[in-house]
Amino acid sequence: MKNFDIAIIGGGPAGYNAAANASANGLQVVLFEHTALGGVCLNEGCIPTKTLLHSANLLDEMRESAAYGIHVEGAISANYAEIVARKDKIVKTLTGGVSYKLKGAGVTVVSKTARLTGEEGDRILVATDDETYAVSYVLLATGSETAIPPIPGLSEVGYWTSREALSATTLPKDITIIGGGVIGMEFAGIYTSLGVPVRVIEMAPEILGAMDSETSGMLRKEYARRGIQFYLETKVTAVSAEGVSIETKDGKTEVLPTSQILLSVGRRPVTDGLGLETLSIQMNRAAVVVNEYMQTSHPRVYAAGDITGFSMLAHTAIREGEVAINHIVGGSDDRMRYDSVPAVVYMHPEIAGVGATEEKLRAEGRYYRVLKLPMAYAGRYVVENEQAPGLCKVLVDENDTILGCHILGNPASELILLAGIAVTDRSSIEDFRRHIFPHPTAGEILHEVLFS
Amino acid sequence: MKNFDIAIIGGGPAGYNAAANASANGLQVVLFEHTALGGVCLNEGCIPTKTLLHSANLLDEMRESAAYGIHVEGAISANYAEIVARKDKIVKTLTGGVSYKLKGAGVTVVSKTARLTGEEGDRILVATDDETYAVSYVLLATGSETAIPPIPGLSEVGYWTSREALSATTLPKDITIIGGGVIGMEFAGIYTSLGVPVRVIEMAPEILGAMDSETSGMLRKEYARRGIQFYLETKVTAVSAEGVSIETKDGKTEVLPTSQILLSVGRRPVTDGLGLETLSIQMNRAAVVVNEYMQTSHPRVYAAGDITGFSMLAHTAIREGEVAINHIVGGSDDRMRYDSVPAVVYMHPEIAGVGATEEKLRAEGRYYRVLKLPMAYAGRYVVENEQAPGLCKVLVDENDTILGCHILGNPASELILLAGIAVTDRSSIEDFRRHIFPHPTAGEILHEVLFS
Repeated sequence: MKNFDIAIIGGGPAGYNAAANASANGLQVVLFEHTALGGVCLNEGCIPTKTLLHSANLLDEMRESAAYGIHVEGAISANYAEIVARKDKIVKTLTGGVSYKLKGAGVTVVSKTARLTGEEGDRILVATDDETYAVSYVLLATGSETAIPPIPGLSEVGYWTSREALSATTLPKDITIIGGGVIGMEFAGIYTSLGVPVRVIEMAPEILGAMDSETSGMLRKEYARRGIQFYLETKVTAVSAEGVSIETKDGKTEVLPTSQILLSVGRRPVTDGLGLETLSIQMNRAAVVVNEYMQTSHPRVYAAGDITGFSMLAHTAIREGEVAINHIVGGSDDRMRYDSVPAVVYMHPEIAGVGATEEKLRAEGRYYRVLKLPMAYAGRYVVENEQAPGLCKVLVDENDTILGCHILGNPASELILLAGIAVTDRSSIEDFRRHIFPHPTAGEILHEVLFS
Repeated sequence: MKNFDIAIIGGGPAGYNAAANASANGLQVVLFEHTALGGVCLNEGCIPTKTLLHSANLLDEMRESAAYGIHVEGAISANYAEIVARKDKIVKTLTGGVSYKLKGAGVTVVSKTARLTGEEGDRILVATDDETYAVSYVLLATGSETAIPPIPGLSEVGYWTSREALSATTLPKDITIIGGGVIGMEFAGIYTSLGVPVRVIEMAPEILGAMDSETSGMLRKEYARRGIQFYLETKVTAVSAEGVSIETKDGKTEVLPTSQILLSVGRRPVTDGLGLETLSIQMNRAAVVVNEYMQTSHPRVYAAGDITGFSMLAHTAIREGEVAINHIVGGSDDRMRYDSVPAVVYMHPEIAGVGATEEKLRAEGRYYRVLKLPMAYAGRYVVENEQAPGLCKVLVDENDTILGCHILGNPASELILLAGIAVTDRSSIEDFRRHIFPHPTAGEILHEVLFS
């Protein structure tokens, strides 16, 4: 039996950042990760997709370079094997960085599966196959996995999830993406830039689920123009060697031949074999229930990241882990807030949002007013983008308090936190527009829009 | 004699934004601009340089594309005439936008030089060559012009200022830039990318004057590696047909042959012929003295932009104009603050800073602590940059209050306002790191650095 202050189960963004924090706060930390440090995000999610995307974007930009006075004599081509090799190199660099960070912080990393096995007095027991650890606190951070819907024929025909798509070293001849959410659309964008014919099948009336539907619709139209075939309000009824069988809202059926299926209908928390029942941890369907300090129903067992089922985003996970550790070490009343978590879809252009959407406010029957401007009202955006669609919209309440912001246009991912701060601080239009936005920047649109 | 509520003299960023604001607040506005709406910034400054820079950056990125798996068969070349034509098109689009905005706002635009001519009762008089305007308020926003130092031989030999550099339709064979401040260095960067041999002569021990000297030094070394010849602590003693005569700090002299001189030693406020003496407007050397509401010594004459001599930045000008109009229309106690004005130098990579520098704090004898990390601690930066130098540093006081931030690395221009908000709000490390930074972004470095 080994003793630690805290056991962290899962070495993804929630777990590894929390481990370093906990250690910096003087706790003896053991971290269990049975596959790869960095989790899905670093190994088969955020980072590898953004690496592919960066090459794909560069290819797009090079193809359009004549508009900026830059000319290429011969052909421009993408070497996918090299792009994948660069992705692998970057993943290796960054996972190496995580390992180095944890080592430097004095965290004990155990490369095994761990499970809860009960408690003895005030010690919680966590076991691997050959050792038991007695700890004061546990942070559950096991993450999520791709949800596999019960579509007839799926297992016979074979399919990719994001994991297989990222590990493939050649491009598919064409691809049918089932699920037009964030993951599906990021792959759709990359494949389109790389010349792969793409079809996206989505049950909802618009892609990108919880994002602002106006900007999502603009992005969808832009990609339709670039060749993606969208099937909205359409469900997949079966898959077979002949193709993907679909049924539209009005009952029309069709079989779409395809050489590759990518499944991206969502992700679900991983809790199997975690021993949650040994401490009677309360669940809500597949997710672990937590309070605003990230405590589960057991006050010394915390959870952070996708296992909580809230937002399935790495940055939410990182923040949840911070809140958990802050609560454990005490000293500040730090609570998790989900009202200003930015969401980004990394396409070309990027789309990002924070705070309330029009759809949500309408559903709640709340008053709101929309301020919006094309991104082209920011001079820098005009300088950097020939004819890219772009929109910035801000939603305010009856007191001109900023409730949400939604941006289509680069670099939305880097800009959205500015609006996130406004939402967090419940800033008014007047407060926020006093900030001095450097000129010329794309970010100035957030200043301009508040005068519109 | 025509009557208006306010006369705005100068149609640059300070003037045209203030005009639109004033009009939106119900004032009858006349705006005088004798050359081009948009001022130096839009016509021969920020926007045209960023347009050239964007093409130059694209060229850089295309030359390095193999590192990202993208290959070009033949040669890559820049067509400078096309790049300049695109710049002209964008300037035309944006100045058209300003004209449209002012028209929409109901501002009367007079394309003439205007001057103060005194007052009659509570009306201030402003005259053009053929008309007199009686107004309640005046906003002086005449901007600045390139300062021409008294270097022997300069007028005989001929030289470019930023204006001539921007209007040239061919590239110089080589260029000697006198003054390594923001303007000089932005041109130095563009010319280097476009293959023009560049020499920079700077009197100070480091380029980029008031910027953080550590990041400025890193940027200088990067550009030295790319071929710029820097002469620091060196003054120009004369210019002649033979070249530029320099003298180093330790008295060494040399004559540097050059085919083109670019003069960028600074800018000075434009007040000649403005009639300031008719209202006894108080001056401090070349600049008009203002209080925190942007009032001059005459309580109904305001000034905004470069004429105040403070920061010579378009975004400062815009904000000063806002403060002036807010004071005139009343209702909110809005005061100008200069402690959190972001500064950006648009090179490749960008460098930006806000708040206090180490140099300033040391000079004031104030305690500070430095938190810093290479930009490569942000995964997105690694994804987007093969081997680009990058650094993020944050300065905090003894209570961990954020005093300043300095970033080298793209997109510093878009990120710096995040730190600017921290400086404005006098946030502590603990407060600011609670914001949820989207992952993966380059901006996350501002989160990471606060844990370092």
